[in-house]
Amino acid sequence: MTVESAIIERLRAIATVPAARGLLDDAAVLDGLVLTHDSIAEGVHFFPHDPPASVGWKLVAVNLSDLAAKGAEPAGALLSLTLSSDDSWTEAFIGGVAAACESYGLPLLGGDTIALPDRAPRVLGLTALGRAAGVVPSRSGGLPGDRLWVAGTLGDSAAGLALLTDNPKADGPLVDIYRRPVPLLAAGRALAPHASAMMDISDGLLLDLSRLCAASGCGARIDLTALPLSRAFIAERAQHRAARLFAATGGDDYALLLALAPEREPDVTGCLPVPPTLACIGTLTDGNGLLLTDADGEVPLPERLGHEHRTS
Amino acid sequence: MTVESAIIERLRAIATVPAARGLLDDAAVLDGLVLTHDSIAEGVHFFPHDPPASVGWKLVAVNLSDLAAKGAEPAGALLSLTLSSDDSWTEAFIGGVAAACESYGLPLLGGDTIALPDRAPRVLGLTALGRAAGVVPSRSGGLPGDRLWVAGTLGDSAAGLALLTDNPKADGPLVDIYRRPVPLLAAGRALAPHASAMMDISDGLLLDLSRLCAASGCGARIDLTALPLSRAFIAERAQHRAARLFAATGGDDYALLLALAPEREPDVTGCLPVPPTLACIGTLTDGNGLLLTDADGEVPLPERLGHEHRTS
Repeated sequence: MTVESAIIERLRAIATVPAARGLLDDAAVLDGLVLTHDSIAEGVHFFPHDPPASVGWKLVAVNLSDLAAKGAEPAGALLSLTLSSDDSWTEAFIGGVAAACESYGLPLLGGDTIALPDRAPRVLGLTALGRAAGVVPSRSGGLPGDRLWVAGTLGDSAAGLALLTDNPKADGPLVDIYRRPVPLLAAGRALAPHASAMMDISDGLLLDLSRLCAASGCGARIDLTALPLSRAFIAERAQHRAARLFAATGGDDYALLLALAPEREPDVTGCLPVPPTLACIGTLTDGNGLLLTDADGEVPLPERLGHEHRTS
Repeated sequence: MTVESAIIERLRAIATVPAARGLLDDAAVLDGLVLTHDSIAEGVHFFPHDPPASVGWKLVAVNLSDLAAKGAEPAGALLSLTLSSDDSWTEAFIGGVAAACESYGLPLLGGDTIALPDRAPRVLGLTALGRAAGVVPSRSGGLPGDRLWVAGTLGDSAAGLALLTDNPKADGPLVDIYRRPVPLLAAGRALAPHASAMMDISDGLLLDLSRLCAASGCGARIDLTALPLSRAFIAERAQHRAARLFAATGGDDYALLLALAPEREPDVTGCLPVPPTLACIGTLTDGNGLLLTDADGEVPLPERLGHEHRTS
């Protein structure tokens, strides 16, 4: 058990009300409101040299992606801001927050602004609230026999991050997606009434799928060749097995992963706004393991399924 | 204008919906839920050597104090936790969070757990949600002629902090109150239906009162001799003018400040659960300045009215 999962177990012991969903979900649900909080730290979730407006955008987008996974409509946000000695950074950061809030109709309602000690890495947080539309899908409702679908594409953001790691001045569509992910709010609303289970893919498909499987008490079989990849991703990294494993473990996708009972498929596959794409990537199974295959047969599970740094 | 107030102005420009209350309040109100978020940073809001359980308790208590100021019943919380290399610190911190949540009936619903870079100061946050009971008092409803009241006592926490600054091993009731403030939830619920304006005193009476005055478009006249002081405070610092100015500017009180129309006083003064005390300390006036008096006449306003580090 990692330190992080030990801590989560400790928190779970005090989060016993039904609205907490056992801390197994992207969000809590209280009085018809879907609630989520994500924080980001300089040097862990973003680079000091990242454009501050894109850091602000991303903080909003990652929280909205949690609302998307619950089929919720954005209702409001509280911003947790730390001041730095560089006013222009904070000013540009707030500009990015404002742009994302405006783009997705998320009203800023309040929050907190605090000082940090000199030279401390910035830590920024957002609580987002959304209005649930009827049933709120959880991670735990999947059943053996449900097919697994992904709305959106995988690996773009991780490929963008790899480009930036090689060259901080890199640009292009993959870097754009890393910096300004698009939360799939409309897709989430369209899919939520039909999904047996749904979550956003923030830490890597395989890691997040293993969480959905654990919550649902299922295993899964995944066809790597069915992973939805963008043209930009394929142009950069091709689509052989290693590229697909990279896309399946990269994280920061903010695509949606859902389980659908076969009889619900006709309701869904025609209903999505376009984009994003909707791709069937596998099936939930009895048992508890992940099985990967591609055209050459079974694929050994990679040692690292995704990013462990964020867990709830 | 301080950097901090410039940033708040910038945020206010994007927080335009009524639920945001112009960021002038302790909390936002959405669909009958009162929402607040407070963060604390190591080296700014707590000492590295503070007992971690008391840091956890205090984080919960300061957020509950915002709910108290709105007369709201605790409904749930999201915890923003940063992991450190010292597991035992985090474990004890969570114990303090759990104790406060249990004491005040605040269910933990979710949140986020992230890593920080090595040796980064800890930053911890909590979003608290409360159910509003009818009218939610704001800071802006005060009218000239309303009398100003304080529920709770002033200066204890600042006196405890001063003791700890001199001697990190100091203890006693003032240190206890600094470390484990008590949110006045029952008093807040009893007072909220009657108050023209109400807020909690977190940054110092004079600074917070100046904010209530600015929001209400009033001035205020305060009788320093009427400030409610505890026996422990008086035993430590006496109650001369300097001691009372210390209590009026010290901050971290988590007492409640409210404005009451004179005709509402009979409804209120008998209704409070005991403790806390309820003390009339002055009156809202026409105009926009603060006027302090004591038995010797007018008291010059201190240069520093309170702590500017936290503003919303």
